[in-house]
Amino acid sequence: MATFPSARYYQETYRNWAQIFKIMSVLWLVLAMFMTLPLMVLLIERDPDAPAFAVSLIIILSATLSTWALTRGVPLELKPWQMFILTAGSWTSISGFASLPLVLGAPQLSFTNAVFESVSAITTTGSTVLVGIDNLSDGLKLWRGLMQWMGGIGIIVMGIAILPFLKVGGMRLFHTESSDWSDKVMPRTGGIAKATLAVYVILTLAAMLSYWLGGMLPLDAIVHGMTSLATGGFANSDASFGAYAEQPWLLWMASFFMLSGALPFVLYIRFIRSSKSALWKDQQVRGLLKLLLAAIVILSAWRVVQGDDWFVSLTHVTFNVISVVTTTGYASDDYTLWGSLPIAAFFYLTFVGGCSGSTSGGMKIFRFQIAMLMLRNQLRYLIHSNGVFTTRYNQQPVTSDISRSVVAFSFFFFITIAVLALGLAALGLDLVTALTGATTAVANVGPGLGDIIGPAGNFASLPDAAKWLLCIGMLMGRLEILTVVVLMTPMFWRR
Amino acid sequence: MATFPSARYYQETYRNWAQIFKIMSVLWLVLAMFMTLPLMVLLIERDPDAPAFAVSLIIILSATLSTWALTRGVPLELKPWQMFILTAGSWTSISGFASLPLVLGAPQLSFTNAVFESVSAITTTGSTVLVGIDNLSDGLKLWRGLMQWMGGIGIIVMGIAILPFLKVGGMRLFHTESSDWSDKVMPRTGGIAKATLAVYVILTLAAMLSYWLGGMLPLDAIVHGMTSLATGGFANSDASFGAYAEQPWLLWMASFFMLSGALPFVLYIRFIRSSKSALWKDQQVRGLLKLLLAAIVILSAWRVVQGDDWFVSLTHVTFNVISVVTTTGYASDDYTLWGSLPIAAFFYLTFVGGCSGSTSGGMKIFRFQIAMLMLRNQLRYLIHSNGVFTTRYNQQPVTSDISRSVVAFSFFFFITIAVLALGLAALGLDLVTALTGATTAVANVGPGLGDIIGPAGNFASLPDAAKWLLCIGMLMGRLEILTVVVLMTPMFWRR
Repeated sequence: MATFPSARYYQETYRNWAQIFKIMSVLWLVLAMFMTLPLMVLLIERDPDAPAFAVSLIIILSATLSTWALTRGVPLELKPWQMFILTAGSWTSISGFASLPLVLGAPQLSFTNAVFESVSAITTTGSTVLVGIDNLSDGLKLWRGLMQWMGGIGIIVMGIAILPFLKVGGMRLFHTESSDWSDKVMPRTGGIAKATLAVYVILTLAAMLSYWLGGMLPLDAIVHGMTSLATGGFANSDASFGAYAEQPWLLWMASFFMLSGALPFVLYIRFIRSSKSALWKDQQVRGLLKLLLAAIVILSAWRVVQGDDWFVSLTHVTFNVISVVTTTGYASDDYTLWGSLPIAAFFYLTFVGGCSGSTSGGMKIFRFQIAMLMLRNQLRYLIHSNGVFTTRYNQQPVTSDISRSVVAFSFFFFITIAVLALGLAALGLDLVTALTGATTAVANVGPGLGDIIGPAGNFASLPDAAKWLLCIGMLMGRLEILTVVVLMTPMFWRR
Repeated sequence: MATFPSARYYQETYRNWAQIFKIMSVLWLVLAMFMTLPLMVLLIERDPDAPAFAVSLIIILSATLSTWALTRGVPLELKPWQMFILTAGSWTSISGFASLPLVLGAPQLSFTNAVFESVSAITTTGSTVLVGIDNLSDGLKLWRGLMQWMGGIGIIVMGIAILPFLKVGGMRLFHTESSDWSDKVMPRTGGIAKATLAVYVILTLAAMLSYWLGGMLPLDAIVHGMTSLATGGFANSDASFGAYAEQPWLLWMASFFMLSGALPFVLYIRFIRSSKSALWKDQQVRGLLKLLLAAIVILSAWRVVQGDDWFVSLTHVTFNVISVVTTTGYASDDYTLWGSLPIAAFFYLTFVGGCSGSTSGGMKIFRFQIAMLMLRNQLRYLIHSNGVFTTRYNQQPVTSDISRSVVAFSFFFFITIAVLALGLAALGLDLVTALTGATTAVANVGPGLGDIIGPAGNFASLPDAAKWLLCIGMLMGRLEILTVVVLMTPMFWRR
């Protein structure tokens, strides 16, 4: 006799999903609020594009309100498994809603292109399918900047409030009972999140002001300020930051602000509130700075040896290395023309990423550091057969739990890139485009290598199916991969 | 007051190194014995190349005899740290000595080219700098085959007798007290090694006979028989196995024998002596066969969809997939002309490798399987927070010790490739040549991708420095990387 699910079962299922959608709809409301800004600009400028934003806003608000109506009275407590669905669901749905103005309005992108552009924006990747960016309406330029800036907020909040509890990728290293947080400076996650957002806003305003004082037009300063701190990389020109190639001070300012976006935001708070050495003593920050320094010195030397001017070389190398490592993805120059070593170097730098707890993507510098510590221990073990070696990172012990998470993350990171690249190759892309396209998507960097998607290229000419694969890659990368992989296991749904 | 090392210190240092060199010189004698074979062929054929081999033989014998004279009375017991030096030292010195006839004789290679060719041979990689192979003397063709065949013996013996004791790369999984070996079939390592060599010889003879019956000239059958079982890949033609592209039965025979060389040799013994199901029940063998099947089906389908004949496609896909995965490196066709998916697929397949305990290189299939088991556990752990999950492989528990070794190996494997590729790029090689050149060297496969070193290409045109880097890569790959990395740490020498 077959047993049918009881009424109670249906009730619970409804309740579980209602909880998830209720929280998601709050995020949709935030999206709608942000959307009013470009709408206002377009209305003031009497731009024919305004209705596209108005209609999009209405669609999003309707979705929000109907979700609220359907989930009234449902309490807002989530179990861990619901957080996995919520995380993937919010980023996907917000990207979808954010793409509406691009389909309805002026660039009249195809559905695929619009979703690609908004996923690239929200994940702060910065790959673009738009050609003629310089001539977009002010509202659209602003919207592209805002999408990335929102994505930046999203990743900071997720990194502080959600990921450490999901035990994904070893990020608990930055959120344990025994960690510095127990010094009661910021005892509650909510307080940390608010202070972090304040820092994000202040740094963004500082970037905007600097760019404006440096000579950018107000709208350009606003958009680039947002996309610098979000380490997103959307620019207001087809030439990316190449539009300012002759204004070195702007490149140096942008280098500074991209780097600011790639440092752990909690350290800024600690820096302000208690310890002035919080930033410089942090092992992750030091690791990132050392890596940047090494890459900049080597590649600048390479260019100078080839006969380039030292200041021009240093400026552009610094800008582009920081842009790629922080996963911003601005380009001030086509660095694939610098020669064979820079090309290989930029390929590797695409993987690295900035610090955990920043807006950066990539593998994150701490995972490389933990891996190095593990490898050193393994060599010790080969030499002195008996002996147990403990490892510390930022004064905290690296438990086997954390090593395992870091290893699992690294493997999944490479597997995701490998599978995506194979898919892209099956769609006809050459090896370099497929490999670097998959890498730049999963690491949320922006440009790849090669003629098509290189720093001087554009993703528009890729086949639609390739764009969808890259969207999956960008979302998986932004969500630290395992958050999404878990959802693909039958184990999760049998739970 | 400075303390000077005592006489006792010098005595011990001499003794330690004498022990290492004494064993190494035994291997040089083996090399010399093998070298008499091509010498005899050349003498019988009255080839002007004979003196080159004679002189080489004299040099090697002199080195052997003087080493013996200098190390008389030194006992032959080695400590683990000496085994590390012995391993790296023997492969390097044998490659050096084996290259002598190539410098002194007919092809009159430069020192760099000769060493590249012999390192490629002894490590069973199969990359070549020779052009006009079809016209080489019979003695030289035989020597190229013999070098690979010796390398095959070397790696089998090393895999059984040395690596498991050095705790490198998780290979203890195949040599533990609790393993099937305790069934007393082959209680002692020496016995296993002898039986394994017998299997190697018999399979090689079977390959030679098959090729000869299949229509090859006797010398070609002999050389290809040796280079098939050694999964080495040197052929007697610039066209590699493409010389037999119109004789499908030879391609199928070669596919069979390359695969034979890539299976764990101990399983053949168990198959013969006790269990008829030993081969088919082994998790590693099943994993390899499944992977090969998947790759062959997908790539054959790809070619048939493109309009190629199904039998021709199946034959060449099977041959080249097996050739790359077993790290043999014969090519029957320029598979880089098959399209974008096959190119990416062959790039990935270059990493895989065959089974542990075979003549194959690469990462080895068991490491991928262990990694997959670890990742599955990690996903389980994310879903069911509390729970300890144990993993078994071939009925044996995968201890955290073994997981750590596998992870360390994988990381070092990728790091070695990345560093080599960066070096190659710094020497001016394009990204694809640098990446696939480093990979094919470290994985001991043979051909890379791209116009220069692809299956239809040749390593001759690379700059000398690049060849030296690739030699280091081939040796590191053959010696399971960590064996060499250990020697590069100050920790080892401070020991």
